[in-house]
Amino acid sequence: MRLDVVTIFPEYLEPLNVSLVGKARARGQLNVHVHDLRSWTYDRHNTVDDTPYGGGPGMVMKTEPWGDALDSVLADGYETGSGAPALIVPTPSGRPFTQELAVELSERPWLVFTPARYEGIDRRVIDEYATRMPVYEVSIGDYVLAGGEAAVLVVTEAVARLLPGVLGNAESHRDDSFAPGAMANLLEGPIYTKPPQWRGQGIPDVLLSGHHGKIARWRRDEALKRTAAHRPDLIERCEPKTFDKKDREMLSILGWSPDPAGEPYGRFWRRPDGVEE
Amino acid sequence: MRLDVVTIFPEYLEPLNVSLVGKARARGQLNVHVHDLRSWTYDRHNTVDDTPYGGGPGMVMKTEPWGDALDSVLADGYETGSGAPALIVPTPSGRPFTQELAVELSERPWLVFTPARYEGIDRRVIDEYATRMPVYEVSIGDYVLAGGEAAVLVVTEAVARLLPGVLGNAESHRDDSFAPGAMANLLEGPIYTKPPQWRGQGIPDVLLSGHHGKIARWRRDEALKRTAAHRPDLIERCEPKTFDKKDREMLSILGWSPDPAGEPYGRFWRRPDGVEE
Repeated sequence: MRLDVVTIFPEYLEPLNVSLVGKARARGQLNVHVHDLRSWTYDRHNTVDDTPYGGGPGMVMKTEPWGDALDSVLADGYETGSGAPALIVPTPSGRPFTQELAVELSERPWLVFTPARYEGIDRRVIDEYATRMPVYEVSIGDYVLAGGEAAVLVVTEAVARLLPGVLGNAESHRDDSFAPGAMANLLEGPIYTKPPQWRGQGIPDVLLSGHHGKIARWRRDEALKRTAAHRPDLIERCEPKTFDKKDREMLSILGWSPDPAGEPYGRFWRRPDGVEE
Repeated sequence: MRLDVVTIFPEYLEPLNVSLVGKARARGQLNVHVHDLRSWTYDRHNTVDDTPYGGGPGMVMKTEPWGDALDSVLADGYETGSGAPALIVPTPSGRPFTQELAVELSERPWLVFTPARYEGIDRRVIDEYATRMPVYEVSIGDYVLAGGEAAVLVVTEAVARLLPGVLGNAESHRDDSFAPGAMANLLEGPIYTKPPQWRGQGIPDVLLSGHHGKIARWRRDEALKRTAAHRPDLIERCEPKTFDKKDREMLSILGWSPDPAGEPYGRFWRRPDGVEE
């Protein structure tokens, strides 16, 4: 996979040399190019922004440097046979970046990232490249960053670990929160390793029982408890049929109840009163 | 504000020297310490992980290095009068990190981050420090990363830009997506700057009209359109009374309708059929 990043803070992308992504690059599984947007400015001050049409606070990133930068980056990738590019535009106005989208992006040969600063990029840039390639405007969460660079690190890491051969033995896809499988849509509960006693705290007896069925049930109950506490929305989004009899017992203990009026709204389990979104 | 980060990849935190956070450090507004967890290991292989109790894939980060590291970091901060610490634990099992939480954290004097790798940290570490200080287990989004370091960059940046005096003139809090105010819970629409023509594309006439009321209305309509398309959940979460007559007209045009049965569920506006979560 080829990755290009155009930014006014190339040094922010240093983590792409580290750990999982760094190793994938060293092994040739990822081909990463970081470009300084200011290389495509031609005035003395290397201007990349100007005031917004229609007034208002903040500055808008200009069309010309972005257009020239993307033309140049795309020409290089096409020449070297990088396959079909997709543009990834990190923006708080984007659709949510999810694990599902990470999987989709991991199947593409070439991603070009345009992390912006200030109020964002002149809309015409995105409209222009959208005529030639898929554009993914993505938001990594409901918070405001100073720029898109941190989002590039997040998306790159989520995508890179899905590439064949990138993940080492110490890591694992199987029980990931948000990954498909038995724990789909449930958060993982507590985990423990040696020693069995630490500062007066032991570990739950069941984990030493050697009884695989009981351990699996305990983990599932802990996952339900944690999800009910931290992410009631995920339980409401679960297909009711994915909950077995023991799950339903645990949900009842936690104060949840089947919601007879809920199905038209996609909600079968009704959270206890007072539990917020 | 003081920030401590304990990690096995200190070099991943290089972006804390760059841009907004880097400048805030240079001005003395932020006091950042990055620590290598392996400094608190005493075996030849600097071991920080071991197999999980109860079996299963992946590795769990051990209690001892984390306990020793946190004791040492906390002792230093207490000695230098850093105020009351809070522990920030990035984990996919955490509660969602939001702008509201960024504001809350920005009011604290001292944040200690524990980004983990592998399957996460032995639960007893979090339980131990939770007896002494507030612990925030946070998830930056519904995707799987290789470790918590990218989340530290995200949380740090979201928090740092809220500190008094950190944000420069080129940036702005006012119209941020997710910030309080008129655009609360709506995504921002398109923005434009000079030149007025670029590669055959102009800009919307209204932005050149000089009519502030019409410009504000156009921006609000564009924000409604974009939010309806990318984040229907945000419109459903809006207080119905925050929508004025023109907002309601635009929502109708977009296919939304008031939902008479919706209010008990906190939803007043019903999205068009076929629009997914």
